[in-house]
Amino acid sequence: MGLSLTRSWGMSAIRPAKSDLNTLLTDRVPIINETLEFLLAEQQEIPKDLKQTLAYTLSAPGKRIRSVLVLWCCELVAGHDNTNARMAAAAIEMVHTYSLVHDDLPAMDDDDLRRGRPTCHKAFDEATAILTGDALLTLAFEVLASRIDDAALAVRLITELAQASGSAGMIAGQMADIQAERAVGNVDDLEYIHINKTAKMFRCAAVAGGLCGGAGPSQLEALAQYGLKIGLGFQIADDILDVSASSEQLGKTAGKDVKAAKCTYPAVIGIEKSKELERRLVREAELALEPFGQDAHTLRQLAAALEARDR
Amino acid sequence: MGLSLTRSWGMSAIRPAKSDLNTLLTDRVPIINETLEFLLAEQQEIPKDLKQTLAYTLSAPGKRIRSVLVLWCCELVAGHDNTNARMAAAAIEMVHTYSLVHDDLPAMDDDDLRRGRPTCHKAFDEATAILTGDALLTLAFEVLASRIDDAALAVRLITELAQASGSAGMIAGQMADIQAERAVGNVDDLEYIHINKTAKMFRCAAVAGGLCGGAGPSQLEALAQYGLKIGLGFQIADDILDVSASSEQLGKTAGKDVKAAKCTYPAVIGIEKSKELERRLVREAELALEPFGQDAHTLRQLAAALEARDR
Repeated sequence: MGLSLTRSWGMSAIRPAKSDLNTLLTDRVPIINETLEFLLAEQQEIPKDLKQTLAYTLSAPGKRIRSVLVLWCCELVAGHDNTNARMAAAAIEMVHTYSLVHDDLPAMDDDDLRRGRPTCHKAFDEATAILTGDALLTLAFEVLASRIDDAALAVRLITELAQASGSAGMIAGQMADIQAERAVGNVDDLEYIHINKTAKMFRCAAVAGGLCGGAGPSQLEALAQYGLKIGLGFQIADDILDVSASSEQLGKTAGKDVKAAKCTYPAVIGIEKSKELERRLVREAELALEPFGQDAHTLRQLAAALEARDR
Repeated sequence: MGLSLTRSWGMSAIRPAKSDLNTLLTDRVPIINETLEFLLAEQQEIPKDLKQTLAYTLSAPGKRIRSVLVLWCCELVAGHDNTNARMAAAAIEMVHTYSLVHDDLPAMDDDDLRRGRPTCHKAFDEATAILTGDALLTLAFEVLASRIDDAALAVRLITELAQASGSAGMIAGQMADIQAERAVGNVDDLEYIHINKTAKMFRCAAVAGGLCGGAGPSQLEALAQYGLKIGLGFQIADDILDVSASSEQLGKTAGKDVKAAKCTYPAVIGIEKSKELERRLVREAELALEPFGQDAHTLRQLAAALEARDR
């Protein structure tokens, strides 16, 4: 594996000058990928075919924003990331990946392309995709329960992740999203969907990183606010990109939201107002970081990069 | 709710005289149902429609064997059940229920009837059934993380449940089961499927009950052995019942295994040898209970009742 889980990056490490999102993430993405690979390799008793589908979905070139956010928030609080943060990051990436696998199913969003590759049910079959999603979700909780070196921290992380991704979070958002395709949406519905489907997982990632770094209550609250704001901003940028970018640029089917008459910000309030809202969310996210002063430089860059995505 | 979570039943409580499985379970099933109802009622932020589908699947009249087993194993070790055991029992019932909801999907076993009611995707729709299963699985881990009063115990229970139900357990079994429909099965394949798909969750239930009761290593090992043996025996009895009972008796479609050319014990080794194997497993399960002496009376009755099911 060649994975050194004890290595850590100090806050003094060189930051990328460009605010482009992928450049900003580049130096942390390998840590996420190596941690996921390590955890998968450790699963000795998994049948070969299931291991193959888990690897297929986890190795797809995702942006890893949520999981890198865990590392950055841990670094911000503790000065460096640590093994607990990497495990929490991997668990959050697994839950995010499971949600993509299930959302892409024919009965849900029925998508053929994801992260530049055929979706799981296209590459394999539908039953395999359902089980692969189930396996990713289960593995995420197993990783948190068995790899975090402090039981109280593990229990807190599992509670946060289950709440963010469960029926009062991501699943509620996806349910409302599917129903919105059948009815005319308004801004309140839209905000409900995006906060639940996307922003709560960003908040969870920021809080998880803080918890792994030993953050106190006021730091956790600041990180939670930051995560929620950039999460909502990220989803609005995604909505805008769906209208303006090509499938090749996105790595998933473009223009699909419009075709599916999805309840999106550009569809409900128009592109200009969507961009305005996004800018406001970025400012609010930056405001939430004030208690951290200059140390929060990277998180500010991330917020700015999200805004730059749709240009 | 009227739920008293502090009530407990001593080992001296009157035991049913009949060895019929449902009679044996009758006095503990209400505890499981009340705990599930309580946990669902506590979920304030769940959207109404999701709450409805969760209630629909969780309130279906299941046998509750796995969850009652948690209570009994806790009682055996501690003399009475406790709130931790009830939470663990509810979590295991949620995971079992999620597995039924997903296994019944058109892409999997494609079944219309479950626990005497239309399956979740028949009563609602396929997307709802996928999300309901996901929500049940997530809620199970949230319950363990947030309701068990000792962090070390919670982490242990989550690890056990994730391993039993994950890709080296129940999911591996279901994957192999689906693949077996496409190929001629042998006894080794069959044992692999039944141990992973069914027996490991029974083992997990027995161990979880022991852990909640404060069992020591040798007691846990005895309970693990017992759980594995009756789990395998239960599945073989299920295979036999599928051949011999009606849909009405089963509460699910009968004769379906044969029609789907499923890899079952009666199909591979014949009914007589299947019954013989079942009797051997019951004896082995009883043997595993020897360290507990007369205190394990109820668990012995459960093993005997499993054997009596197919008559």
